[in-house]
Amino acid sequence: MAPFLTDWRGRFTGRALAVLRPADPDQVAQLVQACAAHRVPLVPQGGKTGLVLGSVPDASGSAVVLSLARLNRVRALDPVNRTITVDAGCILQTIQEAAAAVGCLFPLSLAAEGNCSIGGNLSTNAGGTAVLRYGNTRELCLGLEVVTAQGELWNGLRALRKDNTGYDLRDLFIGAEGTLGVITGAVLRLFPQPKASITALVAIAAPRQALDLLTLAQDRCGASLTGFELMSDFCLRLVGTHFPSLTQPFVTRHAQYVLLELSSSESEEHAVGLLEETIADAIAQDIADDAVVATSVAQSLALWQLREHIPLAQAAAGKNIKHDIALPVSCIADFIASTDARVLAAYPGCQLVCFGHVGDGNLHYNVAPPPGTAHEDFLAHQDAINRIVHDSVASYAGSISAEHGIGALKRDELKRYKTDVELNMMRAIKAALDPLGIMNPGKIL
Amino acid sequence: MAPFLTDWRGRFTGRALAVLRPADPDQVAQLVQACAAHRVPLVPQGGKTGLVLGSVPDASGSAVVLSLARLNRVRALDPVNRTITVDAGCILQTIQEAAAAVGCLFPLSLAAEGNCSIGGNLSTNAGGTAVLRYGNTRELCLGLEVVTAQGELWNGLRALRKDNTGYDLRDLFIGAEGTLGVITGAVLRLFPQPKASITALVAIAAPRQALDLLTLAQDRCGASLTGFELMSDFCLRLVGTHFPSLTQPFVTRHAQYVLLELSSSESEEHAVGLLEETIADAIAQDIADDAVVATSVAQSLALWQLREHIPLAQAAAGKNIKHDIALPVSCIADFIASTDARVLAAYPGCQLVCFGHVGDGNLHYNVAPPPGTAHEDFLAHQDAINRIVHDSVASYAGSISAEHGIGALKRDELKRYKTDVELNMMRAIKAALDPLGIMNPGKIL
Repeated sequence: MAPFLTDWRGRFTGRALAVLRPADPDQVAQLVQACAAHRVPLVPQGGKTGLVLGSVPDASGSAVVLSLARLNRVRALDPVNRTITVDAGCILQTIQEAAAAVGCLFPLSLAAEGNCSIGGNLSTNAGGTAVLRYGNTRELCLGLEVVTAQGELWNGLRALRKDNTGYDLRDLFIGAEGTLGVITGAVLRLFPQPKASITALVAIAAPRQALDLLTLAQDRCGASLTGFELMSDFCLRLVGTHFPSLTQPFVTRHAQYVLLELSSSESEEHAVGLLEETIADAIAQDIADDAVVATSVAQSLALWQLREHIPLAQAAAGKNIKHDIALPVSCIADFIASTDARVLAAYPGCQLVCFGHVGDGNLHYNVAPPPGTAHEDFLAHQDAINRIVHDSVASYAGSISAEHGIGALKRDELKRYKTDVELNMMRAIKAALDPLGIMNPGKIL
Repeated sequence: MAPFLTDWRGRFTGRALAVLRPADPDQVAQLVQACAAHRVPLVPQGGKTGLVLGSVPDASGSAVVLSLARLNRVRALDPVNRTITVDAGCILQTIQEAAAAVGCLFPLSLAAEGNCSIGGNLSTNAGGTAVLRYGNTRELCLGLEVVTAQGELWNGLRALRKDNTGYDLRDLFIGAEGTLGVITGAVLRLFPQPKASITALVAIAAPRQALDLLTLAQDRCGASLTGFELMSDFCLRLVGTHFPSLTQPFVTRHAQYVLLELSSSESEEHAVGLLEETIADAIAQDIADDAVVATSVAQSLALWQLREHIPLAQAAAGKNIKHDIALPVSCIADFIASTDARVLAAYPGCQLVCFGHVGDGNLHYNVAPPPGTAHEDFLAHQDAINRIVHDSVASYAGSISAEHGIGALKRDELKRYKTDVELNMMRAIKAALDPLGIMNPGKIL
């Protein structure tokens, strides 16, 4: 059972009575019925790539793990309706490839796409790099098939853009992290495959200019703007230290950088022209200091690699204290300035690794120890630093979990920052749909 | 109390103990507390433009009407975050205008926009003409303020693109038609205002060509495709009969027409060029037979007027039997052919008025009597014709209410077409959040 009990980052190993590996939704229903009859808790598990201890059992050993990995069929593909119907255990990359094979795009894209399953993406309402244009996993799902906590199979596999017939059960199961039922299948939205995507790295003086650039790029490019990522110079220096083979395009250093991606349904020329005009505007308006535009797919990938190597460089430097937070986009610059000041006042010299999907208001705001302090030792300050950062997030009406969910890891944080009114509604819904409390206990609530 | 008791179409007049007109969310909370203490049912009411008897009280006279009309402030506008925060009683058009004043677009648009309130739009998850590009009201809402059935004020007014902290209460209240709580405020998404929109009317041989044209236009135009409406020749003839002053652009008649709208964030030239290329492609591929492209805003409006006068022409012709249905887009042509055949077999000579938002799979499939039969007499067949049409919808896994909701009008139809598994989950949620059953009783469930 070992591979099913330890979380993705290797931080926690739970115990289980057994690992159940059903082959289809009916078997899932039968297993849930059996567990309900015997009051045995279930921990649904997909690709197990989650970061908040949502899909591994606790240490009690009283639960069974319900792996959805064998439910891995692409059930149907409808290019005219632009939908794909899949089993919950399908790997995200498999779905992307199936869509591409018929000239369509399934836009959900994230670092774990080769391992994560769509059931897990749905259960955590995963984000990723394409949210700015296409939305979170929630917005990409039209219908669900779910085994309820009573072991009934609910066929909500609607392939419809409009359906106003009663309560939105679909969105209740999405993001519920397996605590209300087990997602066994889904109907997902597909989009036309863009003809071209082109990327630029834009040097700016401070996070505030990133907001000006975002407004400008959205006004000029509309839905063609498909990526907008902020990275501090410290992030790129960290990448340079640990991945010196990656080309860093600017000779002089700048304080901050925006990775900007445009996609065109028309042509590469159209995308390049629009991108160059937008950047020229930004420079003329003193928003941007400098920019490089990728002139080939390889160059675009190289720019994205800089962004994607930030967490890898951090991992190479040692463990650090991570926050996956969301804010109103307009508060991003103020948030960074005031939170940096608060953290540095409490921990002078500590290193702030701040980057993220700024177009969505989503920052990965990570804190590493001062140079010379051992990373492991610094983790002792995790709770105190979480308090500073999350209190700051709350003061801007932000979210303490933008795209990773709550799981077991952030359960106590959730209690601290949600109102009783909201927690009580969540508890009432949990009790209504899972009265025995057997679905993924100890997660979220 | 009379103006608060009769529905928009004048089909039903209920009774009430009183009409309550609170001025702010706290007063709403106090009133709900009082009603809960005395077990008095509440019927939340906005602009009262709904079509399914969702916002008027029943005939018993045991309920109070809770009008949100005095909650009509625009609370905040954040152009950088592209959000607007509004009271539930704000008229939709007021919100559109407030957004436009800062160069932004609030895309929700529907016939009743001058009268309907955003609280009602949210409570019915309203659709309209911009769903293809921007989604339903659900997709346009980031956060809600709700008075619960216990009279507590829930502040869920998040202005965030990403927030994965527990169950999606927001989407549970959206579309719940006031049966779970009272929406008092909302944070809505804004978009960049397109630089230009341009419209064409494309003549095609049959609904199947509309699907080919949709695929072609989406592939070529991506998110620039903002409207895609199908109208039969019968619809345009009806408009011609009742509104002879409206110009009909084609000299020869064609079987079907698609109204196609493109928007560009760049320029009018860009939109026109893209539209002309798309239509040229469609004609070259024998998808389209003919087309007219509007060369001015006035011409675009004139084309949209043809579409918008179809329901008015129907009303002028007399009462008919209406269906607001959704299907997988790929099934639209088969659905129309097979349903037409079934209806005509049962009622020879009856007239089928079929048009709608085909890009969303949403048809208004209406049935008028054979020429010479009185419209009022034909309404006697309403239940039997509903059965034929809705059974056909169900056979294609469609929805019997695409954008109007359930209210009291379609409650029995809902019971017929939903599974017990789904109805029981809905009942469990209703009981969990409104255990006294005082929130808009008799609607949906």
